[in-house]
Amino acid sequence: MSLGISAEEYKRRTDIVLAKMAEEGLDAFVFWNNTSVLYLSGFSFIPTERPICMILEKSGRKTVFVPRLEVEHAGKSREISEAISYPEYPGTEHPLKALGKALEKMGLGKATIGCDAIGYGSTKGYSGPLLSEVLPGAKFVVLRTLVEEIRVIKSPEELALIRESARWGNLGHALLQEYSLPGSNENDVAMRASLEATNMMIKTMGDSYDPHAMGGASVAAGFRGQIGPNSALPHAISVNAVMREGDVLVTYSCPWVGGYTSELERTMFVGEPNAEQRKFFAYMLEIQETAFENIGPGRKCSDVDKAVRAVYEKHGITEYWRHHTGHALGMLNHEAPFFDTGDDTVMTAGMVFSVEPGLYVPGLGGFRHSDTVLVTETGMEILTYYPRELDRLICG
Amino acid sequence: MSLGISAEEYKRRTDIVLAKMAEEGLDAFVFWNNTSVLYLSGFSFIPTERPICMILEKSGRKTVFVPRLEVEHAGKSREISEAISYPEYPGTEHPLKALGKALEKMGLGKATIGCDAIGYGSTKGYSGPLLSEVLPGAKFVVLRTLVEEIRVIKSPEELALIRESARWGNLGHALLQEYSLPGSNENDVAMRASLEATNMMIKTMGDSYDPHAMGGASVAAGFRGQIGPNSALPHAISVNAVMREGDVLVTYSCPWVGGYTSELERTMFVGEPNAEQRKFFAYMLEIQETAFENIGPGRKCSDVDKAVRAVYEKHGITEYWRHHTGHALGMLNHEAPFFDTGDDTVMTAGMVFSVEPGLYVPGLGGFRHSDTVLVTETGMEILTYYPRELDRLICG
Repeated sequence: MSLGISAEEYKRRTDIVLAKMAEEGLDAFVFWNNTSVLYLSGFSFIPTERPICMILEKSGRKTVFVPRLEVEHAGKSREISEAISYPEYPGTEHPLKALGKALEKMGLGKATIGCDAIGYGSTKGYSGPLLSEVLPGAKFVVLRTLVEEIRVIKSPEELALIRESARWGNLGHALLQEYSLPGSNENDVAMRASLEATNMMIKTMGDSYDPHAMGGASVAAGFRGQIGPNSALPHAISVNAVMREGDVLVTYSCPWVGGYTSELERTMFVGEPNAEQRKFFAYMLEIQETAFENIGPGRKCSDVDKAVRAVYEKHGITEYWRHHTGHALGMLNHEAPFFDTGDDTVMTAGMVFSVEPGLYVPGLGGFRHSDTVLVTETGMEILTYYPRELDRLICG
Repeated sequence: MSLGISAEEYKRRTDIVLAKMAEEGLDAFVFWNNTSVLYLSGFSFIPTERPICMILEKSGRKTVFVPRLEVEHAGKSREISEAISYPEYPGTEHPLKALGKALEKMGLGKATIGCDAIGYGSTKGYSGPLLSEVLPGAKFVVLRTLVEEIRVIKSPEELALIRESARWGNLGHALLQEYSLPGSNENDVAMRASLEATNMMIKTMGDSYDPHAMGGASVAAGFRGQIGPNSALPHAISVNAVMREGDVLVTYSCPWVGGYTSELERTMFVGEPNAEQRKFFAYMLEIQETAFENIGPGRKCSDVDKAVRAVYEKHGITEYWRHHTGHALGMLNHEAPFFDTGDDTVMTAGMVFSVEPGLYVPGLGGFRHSDTVLVTETGMEILTYYPRELDRLICG
């Protein structure tokens, strides 16, 4: 079993960036965005107060600029030619001054340099000057979303990781359902299901398992507070809820495999749902089905959301609408483009989206399934596969 | 048992911000930073592609600007007078245009407005205009760290939460030690210890427990890949390691209680350490002790780090130095100021820091304890209390 991002894939990605740099007339590019650094080099680090960036020169050479503590860690990435380090932040010389000198030394003192931000932007106690202040002779061009735009189309290697993630999302969710009983605490159920699914994923995958994500490995499954009436808040925060007979649950199960995730969410019931709950569940299924029917290459993202909104209108349930139909995902749990009335991006093969239109009825509960779908050459494929029908989603 | 942030505390915080706004001649302030919004209003949300901010007017009135999906959630905060909402991002009208109109309607069209950033800056697929573009008649003053600076001094209510966090950090760590045996997988040990400590914390604290943090509740305990030789990487990423006799472990146990955290880290051994490992452990203890001795009100943060660096020099072990002595913490796991040679902030009562000088010896292992300390009127107090001596840190 072989999973992961190959040297060829890193080269392919880098070549696309280099081509864009050439178009813009750039001699080098400074990436502060840690997802971009990971995408182009495989170097995954924990962002803190200490600035870290990667410099890509037009020759294709990759240099990382890191605090002393990350030197050996950065050295493990075969994609990186050199790690230039500063002692610490804030240090006796500000790290960005050292970066300015390093760029100067690389012959970039009067260059035209692209960047995804004009300085480091951490909120974890960092302050500091802009790139333009530490290298005043250079010209900086901010292209914030250069790599984000490339990440939209997933490669076969990326898709293999997302498919593998979807598999373990299914196990995490099966355990969530098994443990969701009257009297259960949401944290206990979430953490137990996550623990056991992670253990089984690791044992099953063996050496082919590589968490590779920022700061941790696991199947993250749970409820985020969407238990009972609180399930009517689409983005609740965990409230330490105890499940009771009659509660609606809105779940999630999102494993990280090799730096990639998938999204599986279900509406479940603790015991038998009542007639109102059945009615809204049926609406939700119909709306999600409508979304599926409108996904395919050559179609617009906005059209999916418009078709979905028409179903809300048809049934007179727009007052229970709270958010758009879905978002792209992969290295981050939310990425552009969006299934949103205002996003006219044309779908093409290789895009991966969540499909999760929801209904949120105050007092009664929230109703949302989320599935991860792949746009294919001929239509679409649903990558997550947990049952969607009500009878299979009753707990206890 | 009563824990949490009171209405009086929110008022005290807000009054400090209002005083700073008056000094700067500001009519209002726009907070994009979610930690600042939580600090001033108790509203905790999951940041996504959808812009969210809080507007504080000089009258003290707080308005949040949120996507439709967060309206009911924001309404649960008693500190917030009003939630103004836009349908979605990107939507048919960009949310920032709606924000510009909302600010106009609040009579701020020609006002002088502070902000912690000139626009929304998510990397999760967001793009959009600046505040100055959507409200061209107003004058914007960027004060990025206004709230960060206030957060440096912790109040009695905050300290009570941090102390409570330290208690459960101890339990999480005790379980980590108990489960760290030859053949154990780091993920299994980390997740089991985290699960059980979280369950016991929740049951012990009863109704006084409120996770209140961004996106989850728990005692987070584990290793982040610092197992065996890999422990010599100060900020490793989980590598799915299996523990073996003779491994050095560098741990962490950081619970979230009421939106606050503490930091407890220990160097442990799977089985008996060898002579080299004992030697470096002893150096590490001496260095941490030196840091403790130099912490107190009226002294400079930089002096702590300088005293620590002198011990490295004395023993000729500076080649194993990788990072500064510590950082402030509280609502975030890293905050300013820093125990760093370049940070001359004067310590005052109420500051909370990690104290974690480390030694990282390639091939042998990493050696780091981290304790959370409070600067008091007369000196300092160590809030974390797990044993620090070698004989108590041998697993199995």
